Amino acid sequence: MKVAIMGYGTVGSGVAEVIDTHEDVISKRSGGIELEIAKILDLRDFPGDKHEEVFTKDFNDILNDPEIKVVAETMGGINPAYDFTMKLLKAGKSVVTSNKELVAQKGLELLEAAEESGTNYLFEASVGGGIPIIRPMSQCLAANHIEGIAGILNGTTNFILTKMIEDDMSFDDALKLAQENGYAEKDPTADIEGHDACRKVCILASLAFGKHVYPSQVETEGISNITLEDVSYIHSANGVIKLLGQIKYIDENNIAAFVSPAVVYNGSQLASVRDVFNAILVRGDAVGDVCFYGRGAGKLPTASAVVADMVDCAKHVNRRKIFGWGPGEEDYVVDYKTQLEMPFYVRAKLSESEVVSMFNDVKFLSRKGQPSDEVAFITDSMTQAKLYEILGDSKVLNVIKVTNY
Amino acid sequence: MKVAIMGYGTVGSGVAEVIDTHEDVISKRSGGIELEIAKILDLRDFPGDKHEEVFTKDFNDILNDPEIKVVAETMGGINPAYDFTMKLLKAGKSVVTSNKELVAQKGLELLEAAEESGTNYLFEASVGGGIPIIRPMSQCLAANHIEGIAGILNGTTNFILTKMIEDDMSFDDALKLAQENGYAEKDPTADIEGHDACRKVCILASLAFGKHVYPSQVETEGISNITLEDVSYIHSANGVIKLLGQIKYIDENNIAAFVSPAVVYNGSQLASVRDVFNAILVRGDAVGDVCFYGRGAGKLPTASAVVADMVDCAKHVNRRKIFGWGPGEEDYVVDYKTQLEMPFYVRAKLSESEVVSMFNDVKFLSRKGQPSDEVAFITDSMTQAKLYEILGDSKVLNVIKVTNY
Repeated sequence: MKVAIMGYGTVGSGVAEVIDTHEDVISKRSGGIELEIAKILDLRDFPGDKHEEVFTKDFNDILNDPEIKVVAETMGGINPAYDFTMKLLKAGKSVVTSNKELVAQKGLELLEAAEESGTNYLFEASVGGGIPIIRPMSQCLAANHIEGIAGILNGTTNFILTKMIEDDMSFDDALKLAQENGYAEKDPTADIEGHDACRKVCILASLAFGKHVYPSQVETEGISNITLEDVSYIHSANGVIKLLGQIKYIDENNIAAFVSPAVVYNGSQLASVRDVFNAILVRGDAVGDVCFYGRGAGKLPTASAVVADMVDCAKHVNRRKIFGWGPGEEDYVVDYKTQLEMPFYVRAKLSESEVVSMFNDVKFLSRKGQPSDEVAFITDSMTQAKLYEILGDSKVLNVIKVTNY
Repeated sequence: MKVAIMGYGTVGSGVAEVIDTHEDVISKRSGGIELEIAKILDLRDFPGDKHEEVFTKDFNDILNDPEIKVVAETMGGINPAYDFTMKLLKAGKSVVTSNKELVAQKGLELLEAAEESGTNYLFEASVGGGIPIIRPMSQCLAANHIEGIAGILNGTTNFILTKMIEDDMSFDDALKLAQENGYAEKDPTADIEGHDACRKVCILASLAFGKHVYPSQVETEGISNITLEDVSYIHSANGVIKLLGQIKYIDENNIAAFVSPAVVYNGSQLASVRDVFNAILVRGDAVGDVCFYGRGAGKLPTASAVVADMVDCAKHVNRRKIFGWGPGEEDYVVDYKTQLEMPFYVRAKLSESEVVSMFNDVKFLSRKGQPSDEVAFITDSMTQAKLYEILGDSKVLNVIKVTNY
């Protein structure tokens, strides 16, 4: 079957490589399907590339080729990816993507367009890179009410936090190392401020509960405020700090969804996820906790998920995958700060007796070199609003949520 | 759509419960499918059961009902499950199962029968209970050459080992506790001798590499020889003992597949799998290591996987899932003892100097209360045959493989 690739960057060139080197296994697992790369769209030139003769700079060469049935969109960004994808779906071609920004922002519209034209829009690679999560959630866990999801969804921030936790490296040094290793972009904002994780939360929440959740609905906090002092206090409580995307079912009309640093206690499957690895824990009412772990990014892991989706489209040319992903609602995602109760880690310029007079019961933490005017503790479960009400105008240095995953 | 359940034991009654309580989410995720339990086959009576009016003791009531399109086989064992399943598939009904013994022994024949009649035979629940693994392996990882698989595939033995490791409980006491908790059968042989894990290895290997592997081809060693002394020595090496099913790709014509206790170093995703939980780690050439974790047994987790398969069958009444599972070959699974190299943990009645004279380089381990005539060490990588050749007629107390997962 003839296929096309749009965007020949890291993931797109990985898609070509995986197709070239996995003919045998793809054919075996799909009952004889062969993928033939008929066109690659990119504005750049790639002289000497193995696929040199199929490059084009004109999107219409793909759109108007009736033999191309499946297209991989690995361009990233909203435009022109959105426009191209919409045109392809309307023209009866299936599209698969690793573009989480586009799926998080325009997933509903694109899935509706696919429904109308009887094509498929698949996006396994948009969350967790090569980790199978979209298909297991929508198919294998189909007979579960999902109660919540918690995920380490961004490899760059997990690498930085791992270096801070294990090597006592400062945030700035760890970020620099991540950039040197190619894990972080020159402008690392999307990763360290949690925007990348936020998009993945939107996709997971939309799939789990069937209403589109948009990035603007998901309150997002990054890791740039985390210090080695926090790491050290939390280590003494037998926990680690992770950047988590969390989703909680509240009732048929409401969920909570947010991205923030969180204390995860050792023993949780999420605590042992180190380095650039990702993990997504799904809590179902029948199955209990299931967890999916692997490389959340990188050329070949992500590309292998894109190609698996292409194979799936090729196997289902006249059949649609059903995701049950419907329209969103304005008040669907609640303000978790007033609605959800959880324990909090607090570091502040307070004395232990001041803390005791404010809170009924807390667990004090300690660290090497702790100054006499600094205190750190973990509170009982309460809303974040209540926490700040109690803390009043105390000199708070940091507050981190404690998760129950 | 009308469905039937054969076998109303733990899993079968769980299937009915999940169908009864998850109508809403099943309908949403499947585009409107409703499952109606039309018949339940069991030789026992269940007076007062919610589904009392649909019970039958006659298999023909299901076989000859043209409206029943999908049947869950939750009877277990080879007979009469095999006979019933074969007849149903030939009659054009799809069958889903949690019966790992049957899939491991007769998977190929049943898949071929399904192929001939254009039906589906699905078995997501046969490995890892509610953990999605069959579908992710066959679909999401379709564009990977699988290099190896290692799994904690049996909850009972993992519970026993966890009690030995964390609570210093003897094997016998931990087994008794597992029986009291309902995790182990009165006759625990199938679990503790590794036969249950062996069946799951057969299913995973057949799926990963496309040739049926039979239980008789998978050398299997249980955990009854593991002592607290071994646990303690291995703790000092920063590792834990797990019962692992391991599969390794060798070349197109050969794999290795075996079940045995294995040393897993802390830091591996498999080391932190405690209690009755299972985990399956798959190593692909493109995706790297991915790991699937959750409850590997239990009424509702397993039932939720069975029901997800029923939904999938209902969605694909006229389409077949392709697994690429072909016939096996006699010499396909090699003798890993002469073919695979790995490090070994050895406990023996030897002196350190005797050990040093036998092996070039070993890592000695220690434990509290170590007798002066006992030694424990970890060797370099070598075949098991070579290890025993070197050890000769030394008084060996235990040997445990060290895994690289």
